[in-house]
Amino acid sequence: MPKLIVSNQRTDEMIGDLGSLTPEYRRYVAGQAQRMVWLAEAGDVLVLPVQLDEQFLSYVAALKGIDRGSWAVVVPPVGSLGEDVLSRDRLEDPEFVTRLKAAVRDHEVRTILPFHFDRVSVRLARTLGLDRHTPGFPFAAQSGTALLNSKAAFRALAVGHGIPVPFGTVTDDRQEAEEFLWEAIGAGQPVIVKQDFHVGGIGNEIISPVPGIRPIGATGTELITDRAALAAHLDRRWAHYAGPHRGRVVLEHYTPESPAIYSELLVTDEGVRLVGHGEMRMKPVINGLIVPAPSVRLPAFAGFLDDSRQLSETLHRMGYRGSLSVDAIVTPDDTILVNEINGRVVGSAHIHRIGEELVGGDYTRERVLIEKRRVAFPDFRTTLDKLTATSLAFDPARRTGVVVTVHDNGRTGGFGGCCLIAEDDAAARVLEEEVDALFGTAGE
Amino acid sequence: MPKLIVSNQRTDEMIGDLGSLTPEYRRYVAGQAQRMVWLAEAGDVLVLPVQLDEQFLSYVAALKGIDRGSWAVVVPPVGSLGEDVLSRDRLEDPEFVTRLKAAVRDHEVRTILPFHFDRVSVRLARTLGLDRHTPGFPFAAQSGTALLNSKAAFRALAVGHGIPVPFGTVTDDRQEAEEFLWEAIGAGQPVIVKQDFHVGGIGNEIISPVPGIRPIGATGTELITDRAALAAHLDRRWAHYAGPHRGRVVLEHYTPESPAIYSELLVTDEGVRLVGHGEMRMKPVINGLIVPAPSVRLPAFAGFLDDSRQLSETLHRMGYRGSLSVDAIVTPDDTILVNEINGRVVGSAHIHRIGEELVGGDYTRERVLIEKRRVAFPDFRTTLDKLTATSLAFDPARRTGVVVTVHDNGRTGGFGGCCLIAEDDAAARVLEEEVDALFGTAGE
Repeated sequence: MPKLIVSNQRTDEMIGDLGSLTPEYRRYVAGQAQRMVWLAEAGDVLVLPVQLDEQFLSYVAALKGIDRGSWAVVVPPVGSLGEDVLSRDRLEDPEFVTRLKAAVRDHEVRTILPFHFDRVSVRLARTLGLDRHTPGFPFAAQSGTALLNSKAAFRALAVGHGIPVPFGTVTDDRQEAEEFLWEAIGAGQPVIVKQDFHVGGIGNEIISPVPGIRPIGATGTELITDRAALAAHLDRRWAHYAGPHRGRVVLEHYTPESPAIYSELLVTDEGVRLVGHGEMRMKPVINGLIVPAPSVRLPAFAGFLDDSRQLSETLHRMGYRGSLSVDAIVTPDDTILVNEINGRVVGSAHIHRIGEELVGGDYTRERVLIEKRRVAFPDFRTTLDKLTATSLAFDPARRTGVVVTVHDNGRTGGFGGCCLIAEDDAAARVLEEEVDALFGTAGE
Repeated sequence: MPKLIVSNQRTDEMIGDLGSLTPEYRRYVAGQAQRMVWLAEAGDVLVLPVQLDEQFLSYVAALKGIDRGSWAVVVPPVGSLGEDVLSRDRLEDPEFVTRLKAAVRDHEVRTILPFHFDRVSVRLARTLGLDRHTPGFPFAAQSGTALLNSKAAFRALAVGHGIPVPFGTVTDDRQEAEEFLWEAIGAGQPVIVKQDFHVGGIGNEIISPVPGIRPIGATGTELITDRAALAAHLDRRWAHYAGPHRGRVVLEHYTPESPAIYSELLVTDEGVRLVGHGEMRMKPVINGLIVPAPSVRLPAFAGFLDDSRQLSETLHRMGYRGSLSVDAIVTPDDTILVNEINGRVVGSAHIHRIGEELVGGDYTRERVLIEKRRVAFPDFRTTLDKLTATSLAFDPARRTGVVVTVHDNGRTGGFGGCCLIAEDDAAARVLEEEVDALFGTAGE
């Protein structure tokens, strides 16, 4: 049953206002939108922000064993924020909707898979008649997605399940926040302050009484040691933390140098399936993944996976259907603390799909996968030629090599992505060095 | 194990801003705060907005078979909003907290039972050292209560469970709301517009294309038949609907003349227990209850109770502990549509407690209970004398008669409440007429 993929990587609901993203970040997001091509099956219709290089589409289709001709790619006209994000005006453009309706009809599409099931996607699904067969549509249609992606709601849900989370609180009260922060500062403890709704660490800041804290999963660190400076900082920043909806703010003890890990799960009508897990490469916000998570060897890891399942079972009961990630940190004493869930197609989805479809077998035990982002590829033909000439291109027989996951066709440079598949950690490191030597990296 | 009862009937979190309540409504709320005395067990400490008549406290204790002397009642000093609501400044007054600490210590209190587990209650619990033993404290401490009382979150949760709800939507988009309303108006269909967070129908309004709609569960009806008037109305009212947090707005088809019913459940560590059910007497917002719900005879009622359990099981998984109500309407074609949950001590709690403790037996099958509010009692002694002289006072042997549930001691007049217990509907109607003849009613 063909589906409609809408690669709305960022939405107003996810971050408050798409217009607040820098043009450079929007270009990065446009590249990341290509990841959803890896989720396409035969006959699917894809809505992407930017038209893709035909060679890239054929490359993906061939690796997946699908006829490229079975896909329709529909790109809406440029919108008020340009061509990089699928902003509301683009997805609701009448001419585009007419074209999309035709494609949906021709391909006998029955369901919709947006990256993020926001209200624009809900309306689009209704307009296209895809509401009836899309699993979880009722939940999404009543704005359930917003509920799921609330960091405040997450903390209540997690502690309600008895799941270990970083010490912290959720409050809309500036005074309470100041007292929480002041107590932490007195104890020499950095705190991460999170907006309720935001992704990729963009809405997060660290407040620390000690210098030298590298902000992993946050945009910066504020050094504060006295009460007056704290009050002045909150005078300046509280409105920002509370966000456009003047909502609740999450405050959590921040443990420096703690790798960020995730589990990805799929919730269907039938139940919950663990898709995989990995570690995020942070510098300082997410920039690629390692699959499987190296911390899988820790005693606490089985508990983390069980907690992930328990949370997902509850989301299943609540009516959510689709992908989700459970995010956590591994503290220096090897404790795993869960700190977020994301109820949407997550950034790891295409990597696990590549693992399942291209690598196959028990890929998480037999292989190490590294996702690299912000790679400066030349044009697609040259990229592939270089990979082939150096024997680095993915080889289905050996089940190792480099898969180009995102190719921005030199549009801006530096926003390509790839998945390195190797037999073990050491081989993966070597492969990454070879790729870096071949293409360099950008955006660092 | 004695508990601390905090009768915070209305909180800023419940309604946005306590200061927005009229002084008259705050006086009503002060009376309603007395209902929690019925939930007190031996040794409990009670925090009430206003000091109660000793005779009333002894009356309640005697009917419950408890020594009045085992209770401590602590009233904080008058606050910025006067003496009728337990506003934050009152509950955080240092002198009061010192007194309360002493009472909590003397009574060996281990847990807290606020009417509404808001952030002020969370802080108070921590200050008093009651956080550790209070069931569900972790969930409440992370602002889980706010999540539970979101009408928007409710709709996602309910449809996610496949529970019948009124046709409707949840949106923060004025344009989407206008289109939803316009479509309904075109179909001759009234719509109820609800603020995300509010109680007792206070935040709700009805927009109707047909005249003569009695606003049950809402404060008023706006007659709108053309698009320009709709747009103008939303220009005026949208900011109000979105509320102080500019949040999501709930829009639902409104079916006139549909009785409002509820089920009350208790979520403990062990699981979920159905406490009872009833119908709300609306004129136009809630003014008392009938227990059991007359609609218990309908074929759909068993499904309603099952849905209530299913929702509560999910809240149990989510980490909520305590009372909750599942609210619904019974449409003229005898369909039951669930339209709200309230995760707090609910207004029916004391009535069911009176049923269990004073009436006993299988009281929901053997008796009809009517809660009356806004009764104009004279002073307490005279009230009791009149009830005794007319043989209307509750008789534990016959298990019928009138229990005075709320007595405002003539402070303002008209905000008393009582529970009428009779053998059947007909007897209950007669009893109500007798009580009306004796005391009259006020506030209508």
